[in-house]
Amino acid sequence: MRSTILSVGTEILFGEIVNTNTVFLSQQLQQLGIDVMYHHTVGDNSGRLADLIKLCFEDCDLVITTGGLGPTQDDLTKETACRVLGDELVLHQPSMDALEARFQKFGRPMTENNRKQAYLPSKSTAFPNDCGTAPGFALEVDGKCIICLPGPPHEMKDMWEKQAKPFLEKKADAVIFSKMIRTFGIGESALETAILDLVDGQTDPTLATYAKNGQCSLRIASKRKTREEAEAAVAEMLVKVQERVGEYIYSTEDEELFDVLGKKLLENNISIACAESCTGGLFAGGLTDIPGISQVFDRGIVTYTNRAKMEELGVKGETLETYDAVSEQTAKEMAAGLQKKTGCRLCLSVTGNAGPGGGTEERPVGLMFIGAAFDGKLVCRRLDPRGRDRSGNRRWAVLNMCELALRLLEGRE
Amino acid sequence: MRSTILSVGTEILFGEIVNTNTVFLSQQLQQLGIDVMYHHTVGDNSGRLADLIKLCFEDCDLVITTGGLGPTQDDLTKETACRVLGDELVLHQPSMDALEARFQKFGRPMTENNRKQAYLPSKSTAFPNDCGTAPGFALEVDGKCIICLPGPPHEMKDMWEKQAKPFLEKKADAVIFSKMIRTFGIGESALETAILDLVDGQTDPTLATYAKNGQCSLRIASKRKTREEAEAAVAEMLVKVQERVGEYIYSTEDEELFDVLGKKLLENNISIACAESCTGGLFAGGLTDIPGISQVFDRGIVTYTNRAKMEELGVKGETLETYDAVSEQTAKEMAAGLQKKTGCRLCLSVTGNAGPGGGTEERPVGLMFIGAAFDGKLVCRRLDPRGRDRSGNRRWAVLNMCELALRLLEGRE
Repeated sequence: MRSTILSVGTEILFGEIVNTNTVFLSQQLQQLGIDVMYHHTVGDNSGRLADLIKLCFEDCDLVITTGGLGPTQDDLTKETACRVLGDELVLHQPSMDALEARFQKFGRPMTENNRKQAYLPSKSTAFPNDCGTAPGFALEVDGKCIICLPGPPHEMKDMWEKQAKPFLEKKADAVIFSKMIRTFGIGESALETAILDLVDGQTDPTLATYAKNGQCSLRIASKRKTREEAEAAVAEMLVKVQERVGEYIYSTEDEELFDVLGKKLLENNISIACAESCTGGLFAGGLTDIPGISQVFDRGIVTYTNRAKMEELGVKGETLETYDAVSEQTAKEMAAGLQKKTGCRLCLSVTGNAGPGGGTEERPVGLMFIGAAFDGKLVCRRLDPRGRDRSGNRRWAVLNMCELALRLLEGRE
Repeated sequence: MRSTILSVGTEILFGEIVNTNTVFLSQQLQQLGIDVMYHHTVGDNSGRLADLIKLCFEDCDLVITTGGLGPTQDDLTKETACRVLGDELVLHQPSMDALEARFQKFGRPMTENNRKQAYLPSKSTAFPNDCGTAPGFALEVDGKCIICLPGPPHEMKDMWEKQAKPFLEKKADAVIFSKMIRTFGIGESALETAILDLVDGQTDPTLATYAKNGQCSLRIASKRKTREEAEAAVAEMLVKVQERVGEYIYSTEDEELFDVLGKKLLENNISIACAESCTGGLFAGGLTDIPGISQVFDRGIVTYTNRAKMEELGVKGETLETYDAVSEQTAKEMAAGLQKKTGCRLCLSVTGNAGPGGGTEERPVGLMFIGAAFDGKLVCRRLDPRGRDRSGNRRWAVLNMCELALRLLEGRE
């Protein structure tokens, strides 16, 4: 199946919002095995929208629109879709009931133009909106299918998961099941080499690698007659992948490093504290983004100056003088000092030069050290420069803190 | 002038990258007074790209493409633009010289396919690339203009600023000059009301408000014969705006709160430390994103638990018991304790419940307190819930810390 994603909204053309809907839908369609041929964006203008929908159907069988389903006069997607595919809007009573119930629940008066949202194309399949007022729908005429979803991302995603995705899965003659495997510490080409024999000559499941921000992911996807068959094929391939690169895998469920670490800390009730220099609080900030983490996270200390490192963490002046603040010794003393102070079971530290200035030959921009104290162990990981900018260096250090912590918790370091 | 932005790249259709180029160019074109009618994205396919370029020119006089200028076989934008507009690629010697110099500088061998990048349409204006290898260009034929820019955002933006924007400004019969004014603490409708008499009946300069993440911005734009005239008109209007809402303006140069604060701290060499609870290090993380901030930033302490608040900042157990951790008293004791400990001139604190859980009637999710100690003053700002989620609450608190700090530094609090 060939598809186009069509975004409707003048605010997108003004550059006022980043169109994340299109990114989400592209990934989702890809996973369903549906080719995405184009992305188009058009303003709230019925004539131009109609022309674009017609154009889409010249080359594609499926058009997914987002936006323009609201109650105001410039919301024109429904009317235009009807016009192009030769249908008409009729009252959809279940949608009207839902709309009235929603307004009642929030104690707001329902205005006349809100009622407009309960009108849907007569031949369409209605998609209820659990997160907002505008229902969506799928309209199929002569082998052409248009699916209209609301513009606000949380409404769109919810409707996609509950309505549009199952709708499209039912239409397909096969089911695609996939898993995104997250790795850390292995480059894309090394990963590809390690699984080369699994990729070669293999048509199903397929394996595809993705590199982003210094991390590689691997998607294992299978297209079979039933979901059970596809799941089994993916599981079987995952075992083979794990035999080869299991050492580098931190999630088989497409989770972020922070989420995996947070879950592990909470599950095992392991208290944690951190001492950051060059990352300036980003590790603490990321970890505390996880709801409920206060159960295990005691404190974080951003020791930017040498004085703060000595006062807060008991780093020795001698160590700073002899080895420098950016050194394995300092990183270790930071972690050990933090553990002594807080009594937390896991204490992490980082010190380094994120740049852009201050680099020397001996200690170039990007040289950073991660320290960790855990259950009597005191370890350090050295990060060498890889040409990243300040933000990139800081992010890279934070990811390494997460990953080193995970390895320690799992007894792999 | 009517324009279309055309992004070229299969990776965009796969949803692998967020298309920020289009957002940037939309805003820039808008500011030049050029209407953006469509955004299109197409994969690395010459036939479909050619069809789309033709379609664009049916409705627009300007097409700006990004991507597909690289050295590999699937980089087809140049060839396709030539084909549609009836031109041919010829060697552009200055581009070849720049390319060779670049490879020499980085000590990498130049392969044959790299030379392809020095070929440009014979009738085009070359746009040198100061950040990468692929030059861009503008090609005008029969009143139709196509501007081709590279895909990597930092290359594209640099070439836009230095080449494409001046090129388009020269073509225009007028010059647009605008300023983006940043405010904090005033809502969009209140801002609009305050400047209503300036907006009404005013055709130039124009005033437009933008709301994002709880902050409002105001763009003052003027289109005149010369840049001097436009600048003068904007400056005159800015004075009137400042008379009405100057109290809320923190930047007339479209800067972020963190950047304004960092600049002020560095200029006046004011030492700073922070103690964070619910924001978990995000304030420290944001401030330390500013290069060179180590000159004034001493340390940050993330005191997530009550014990950490007492141990690190000397908050009294009695205070926590009587008033709770989420209270004005605790916020003030955190800031005062931090100042006592560090001796920093400006000490900021924050405590609150970012959610999603843990809310009570007395202390609902979203209730947060910002404390600040500066030059003998000890102040507190209370933030009441506004229905934000965890991330939103945390971001809102960080912005308020910045803004409260700025007011103190400027003697406005």
